[in-house]
Amino acid sequence: MEAQAAVATRAFADRLAAAVVERRSQLVVGLDPRLDLLPLELRGDAHTGPEAAATAFSRFCRGLIDAVCPYTVAVKPQSAFFEALGADGVRAFEDVCDYARAAGLLVIGDVKRGDIGSTARAYAAAYLGPRAGQPPVADAITVNPYLGRDSLEPFVAECRRSGRGIFCLVKTSNPGGVDVQDLKLTDGTLVWQQVARLVAELGEGVVGECGLSSVGAVVGATYPRAVSEARRLLPQAILLLLGVGAQGATPADVARAFTSGPASALVSVSRSINYAFRDGEADWRTAAAAEAARLRDEVWRASGW
Amino acid sequence: MEAQAAVATRAFADRLAAAVVERRSQLVVGLDPRLDLLPLELRGDAHTGPEAAATAFSRFCRGLIDAVCPYTVAVKPQSAFFEALGADGVRAFEDVCDYARAAGLLVIGDVKRGDIGSTARAYAAAYLGPRAGQPPVADAITVNPYLGRDSLEPFVAECRRSGRGIFCLVKTSNPGGVDVQDLKLTDGTLVWQQVARLVAELGEGVVGECGLSSVGAVVGATYPRAVSEARRLLPQAILLLLGVGAQGATPADVARAFTSGPASALVSVSRSINYAFRDGEADWRTAAAAEAARLRDEVWRASGW
Repeated sequence: MEAQAAVATRAFADRLAAAVVERRSQLVVGLDPRLDLLPLELRGDAHTGPEAAATAFSRFCRGLIDAVCPYTVAVKPQSAFFEALGADGVRAFEDVCDYARAAGLLVIGDVKRGDIGSTARAYAAAYLGPRAGQPPVADAITVNPYLGRDSLEPFVAECRRSGRGIFCLVKTSNPGGVDVQDLKLTDGTLVWQQVARLVAELGEGVVGECGLSSVGAVVGATYPRAVSEARRLLPQAILLLLGVGAQGATPADVARAFTSGPASALVSVSRSINYAFRDGEADWRTAAAAEAARLRDEVWRASGW
Repeated sequence: MEAQAAVATRAFADRLAAAVVERRSQLVVGLDPRLDLLPLELRGDAHTGPEAAATAFSRFCRGLIDAVCPYTVAVKPQSAFFEALGADGVRAFEDVCDYARAAGLLVIGDVKRGDIGSTARAYAAAYLGPRAGQPPVADAITVNPYLGRDSLEPFVAECRRSGRGIFCLVKTSNPGGVDVQDLKLTDGTLVWQQVARLVAELGEGVVGECGLSSVGAVVGATYPRAVSEARRLLPQAILLLLGVGAQGATPADVARAFTSGPASALVSVSRSINYAFRDGEADWRTAAAAEAARLRDEVWRASGW
């Protein structure tokens, strides 16, 4: 019991840093289950209703976890796809998170939550706080900064209390991200750069023994210059880099994110691993494993560690 | 069946406008169930686990809905408090939404979602899209604009398709809202004013027969000058005004929001109605009904309609 308690309160950043070195991987596999893209053998009666679909999602994600486990440090289940099935889907989300944890992987819940006061505390408790007799649903979650510092502080407090982490959206990978994030301020900086400063400040209170903070930042690998600039503004943050694969960025685009250490950035890839089987004849698990292995090696080499 | 289909695709703005006039109310009652604040009679074994707690949340919210129904046009269940109970809580959230709809109220799901591409489409489908044999979970939801136009468009598309609405965070009621929303741009405007322009543009495609758009905006009543400015920037939007009651704003602070018509703004109040019983000796339902009736009248008078 004591050992368990000690593990639970070890800083997220330290747990992640250890896992990166041990597994020689900075790859995060996103889990994006979609009914219309599932392998044929899992479709079965999945179209008959949310309960059957949720079971199919669980089986798909569990199979992916088994397949990619040797090559990845974390999985990032995308909550939206599970929420689309209602409460049954949320049950499957919890199942997938628990399964990944039992397989020795860290879990980054891609929920992009953000709210104020007691509501933010409820979200923090929902995903990062201990459950009755069980560890939290996730080791870290993604959060949205639009509501400002007081909306993020409850998450940071939970990170400190429970040894968890957050990745705050800073500069996202999508074209429309510029609409708000790239607005130019009177001092010549951009909105996302101010958000990066806010994230850096919030992260100061939760720096682990490894020198990295448990408050990280989401940055789009589709903007290589922004990656370099984010690294400069957030020297202690773990950067969660999105957009490699389906969105067109390559591991080489993110090399400069790793200058703060081997675990100072993570590359998250979803679709090109989840649905690798659609490009060939291989079994879906085999195809996912091969693509994860390839990306793990490519990112590790690009990181220069 | 045909009548049902017609109802389902009638624009959210038109359904809301009709309800406001019919009920002579612009009051939205937020539903924020919290274990530590529940009426004694509902606590029972609610602390024994998420399933029992979710049952207590359902009973509390159903009781509130019955009590405030004559005085309100919509309820706004806060997803975070339900999500804190995991899948059991999400089941209760769905139950509460269905119960409110059956009582003749509109349902604004306070979920503050925001994501990109297929993920945004999944969120839109989860809350605004039809379920197998059932109407959507909510009539409208709150969304977050940090990821820009392409993150909001899938929600707008679902609004058009299913006769639903969204309320985009624009200028929020909390003190920290200024950290991002009030950053000053090179043209002298603030970030939230740019977001308001984006919301106005997105809303142009879903203007109902009543002249109001199904794309609305969340504005903090705690900033009365921002309310007036938001009204100017968003002449066709329904403004969802937060912060009246527990956060200190009064109905008088929001009077200028109503210049685009009686349904052009809604005042959402949560805690001071949900927990009105804690200030006196009355039954929790009686206390909530009295506070809702009082606020409904006060807002209607302040609106000048």
